[in-house]
Amino acid sequence: MSPAGGMPNSFDIARAGALPPELSELIARRGRVLGAGYRLFYDEPVHLVRGQGVHLFDEHGHGDLDAYNNVPCVGHCHPYVADAIAKQVRTLNTNTRYLDEQILDYAERLLATHGDGLRNVIYTCTGSEATDLALRIARYATGARGIVVTSNAYHGVTTAAAEVSPSLGAGAPLGEDVRTVPPPRLGESAKEVGARLAADVRKAIDGLGQQGTRFAAFLADSIFSSDGLRPQPAGFLKPVIEAVHDAGGLYIADEVQSGFARTGEAMWGYQRHGLDPDLATMGKPMGNGIPIAAVAMRPELVAEFGREVRYFNTFGGNSVSIAAAAAVLDVIENERLMEHALSVGGYVRDRLADLAADRPYLEGVRGAGLYLGVDLVDPEKRQPDGELALRVVNELRRRRVLISATGPEGHTLKIRPPLPFARYDGQRLLGELEQVLLAVDAAQTTARGSRQ
Amino acid sequence: MSPAGGMPNSFDIARAGALPPELSELIARRGRVLGAGYRLFYDEPVHLVRGQGVHLFDEHGHGDLDAYNNVPCVGHCHPYVADAIAKQVRTLNTNTRYLDEQILDYAERLLATHGDGLRNVIYTCTGSEATDLALRIARYATGARGIVVTSNAYHGVTTAAAEVSPSLGAGAPLGEDVRTVPPPRLGESAKEVGARLAADVRKAIDGLGQQGTRFAAFLADSIFSSDGLRPQPAGFLKPVIEAVHDAGGLYIADEVQSGFARTGEAMWGYQRHGLDPDLATMGKPMGNGIPIAAVAMRPELVAEFGREVRYFNTFGGNSVSIAAAAAVLDVIENERLMEHALSVGGYVRDRLADLAADRPYLEGVRGAGLYLGVDLVDPEKRQPDGELALRVVNELRRRRVLISATGPEGHTLKIRPPLPFARYDGQRLLGELEQVLLAVDAAQTTARGSRQ
Repeated sequence: MSPAGGMPNSFDIARAGALPPELSELIARRGRVLGAGYRLFYDEPVHLVRGQGVHLFDEHGHGDLDAYNNVPCVGHCHPYVADAIAKQVRTLNTNTRYLDEQILDYAERLLATHGDGLRNVIYTCTGSEATDLALRIARYATGARGIVVTSNAYHGVTTAAAEVSPSLGAGAPLGEDVRTVPPPRLGESAKEVGARLAADVRKAIDGLGQQGTRFAAFLADSIFSSDGLRPQPAGFLKPVIEAVHDAGGLYIADEVQSGFARTGEAMWGYQRHGLDPDLATMGKPMGNGIPIAAVAMRPELVAEFGREVRYFNTFGGNSVSIAAAAAVLDVIENERLMEHALSVGGYVRDRLADLAADRPYLEGVRGAGLYLGVDLVDPEKRQPDGELALRVVNELRRRRVLISATGPEGHTLKIRPPLPFARYDGQRLLGELEQVLLAVDAAQTTARGSRQ
Repeated sequence: MSPAGGMPNSFDIARAGALPPELSELIARRGRVLGAGYRLFYDEPVHLVRGQGVHLFDEHGHGDLDAYNNVPCVGHCHPYVADAIAKQVRTLNTNTRYLDEQILDYAERLLATHGDGLRNVIYTCTGSEATDLALRIARYATGARGIVVTSNAYHGVTTAAAEVSPSLGAGAPLGEDVRTVPPPRLGESAKEVGARLAADVRKAIDGLGQQGTRFAAFLADSIFSSDGLRPQPAGFLKPVIEAVHDAGGLYIADEVQSGFARTGEAMWGYQRHGLDPDLATMGKPMGNGIPIAAVAMRPELVAEFGREVRYFNTFGGNSVSIAAAAAVLDVIENERLMEHALSVGGYVRDRLADLAADRPYLEGVRGAGLYLGVDLVDPEKRQPDGELALRVVNELRRRRVLISATGPEGHTLKIRPPLPFARYDGQRLLGELEQVLLAVDAAQTTARGSRQ
């Protein structure tokens, strides 16, 4: 089963009848009011009433280990962040057309974590809005329209963001001025990956030129999540961005997935590649779940756009979202979550490699910090096995460990917990995963036996 | 001074030197980090540190009467809403890919306030995202691209929303598949306004057809805020929507301004016109400042889009935003804010009419509930006087009463307070306004004298 155009790990509504009555009733009710556009995770969707740290709880008090959600990056319902929000919501919540010092304090702090080039920030509410605004600014600044993205990229759901998000599938076609390049391959050197990707980007820019579309920007998730996760070998983006700049285009780093210390190696994913982007978009973990996102940029890019077009987002940079975001930065620093992600992530990656060592259907263990992946493949045909990946994801869910699958074939396990995920949480995840894999081992042995 | 393409009542950065040092330093700091895209209100921007009810306070404890902000619709920092947020943020904050009953409870409650047709709701974070999604769905459902809006409409700041927002000015050009119609005129009967607007919409649809663009939807703010506020005569939209439907298009009601009881006469602005829209967008007041917005729609419009495209907004419908939105509905009901808006709004409108009665430079007093406007005109040339409107706005600001200006010429005073605005708040507003107008009277008398 290929999820291309579909969504890996989405609940199939046709299976609702097989669920416990209270779940299937809730799902029917949901279908009636929320309609056809919504998806649930897992064969048996998870009903939640409480969250704490790296755990989510159902109405019977049963807890799931959350090894998936990056939005609550400092942990579900972190008391320090919750207190900051509770305090701000009782003090002031207003917009950016009045003067407010907190938004400036936060902007200065946030920009200090970026390189020297990105000295302006504009707040939005979602990563989609950040993508959309970055595209608007890049196109305005260059006077060009062409955008290059990777072939299973995801950058958001506004009209313009969906047009640069091939992972949404054929139902949401790419824009006429958008070209794709194949994502980095696994298992090659930085030099090989960089050279190929740079050549592909040059070819895409030429292709745009041949249809009369001038090149505006290369937009890439710094960790290539929806393309199947490509954290290594860090550095491969360098020659790609040189090619982008040589062609007169801008480089927009999408940090919605890789940002805010997730990779353990740097605050921002592009920094692992030794780069200075022209614009960077930030989102999901920024406010630990309170809607806030942003675009950072070189000031000269926004000077004319700002003067001639302006940008006002009513809720963008509202006082409560800023208070949440500032508290998140505090916790990342105070709890040393970047170092923590590096250490625990490294441990989980090593143990994953151990699990994969003698299992021919598991390959490509990879990760940076607490963003980890491993591929499920058919051991004989050496082809992606998205169905097996889903079975593993759903078996883990039954064992109360939440992960998901990603990639164009949906065959990559996606492990991306809140950053306070501890070594013993990793041990639990790996122990349950081992149990699931032992059952897969047994099934594969039986299958091989019956074929011989 | 015409603000067309500019923004009525925006602070001119060139004047920063004339401000008190602490303000000008804050503004300089803001310019350095937030960049050129941001605007402040007023000749002397307002520095805020606290909000409560209908008042906003600066760092010295001085309070402004807020007769402008509709986002904090139940009042700044309403304790009931703040408590609901504080509780939820400590309990659970998750997304729509897990089952959660609160989002369904709220959806059912929200949809019950709409007509029978709108039976599905999709949550976004901002009104811009709601517009963008409504356009995506309308275009997908009709297979057509053409959109008709009014000539100074504002519907948002995503790429697609900006393309249907002529009020953003020439810097943000309209989309190729977008046509505009003149807004309703003041002072005509519902029949006259409706007939003219319907004819203009038909002409715009024909114009689209002549360029080979099929008509998808008519999108209109139900109270025509940025077009200069056109609350009366309610009912004029009916023949317009008949024309839209006759041409095979959809009607998208933009309720970001007129929704959530603001008009005092109905929960939604379209209900005042006796209509059933095909889609309705909701935003600003929905969560009293916590980012939440939505699109309600006829289920058949989203069935195929939902199946083939899907829609996931990470923060859209998150638990905290839903808790805030549910608390807002509670307060609107418990404090009977719709009835209150009707009564206080009616009082303010009558007193505004008294103030205008013997002042030839004030005309067109209008409003519905707590959304009120009056035009400033040159009494001899009978032309819009945006400069005078700004002077009034800034004089009121100096007297610690916050309103703003709107309309294509910026000559309409925009009075749109939080809904708990009391009769004595109205009296204060009107009393200060009268003082400002007495000074205008004196100046005009002097000017007339010197010309004679």
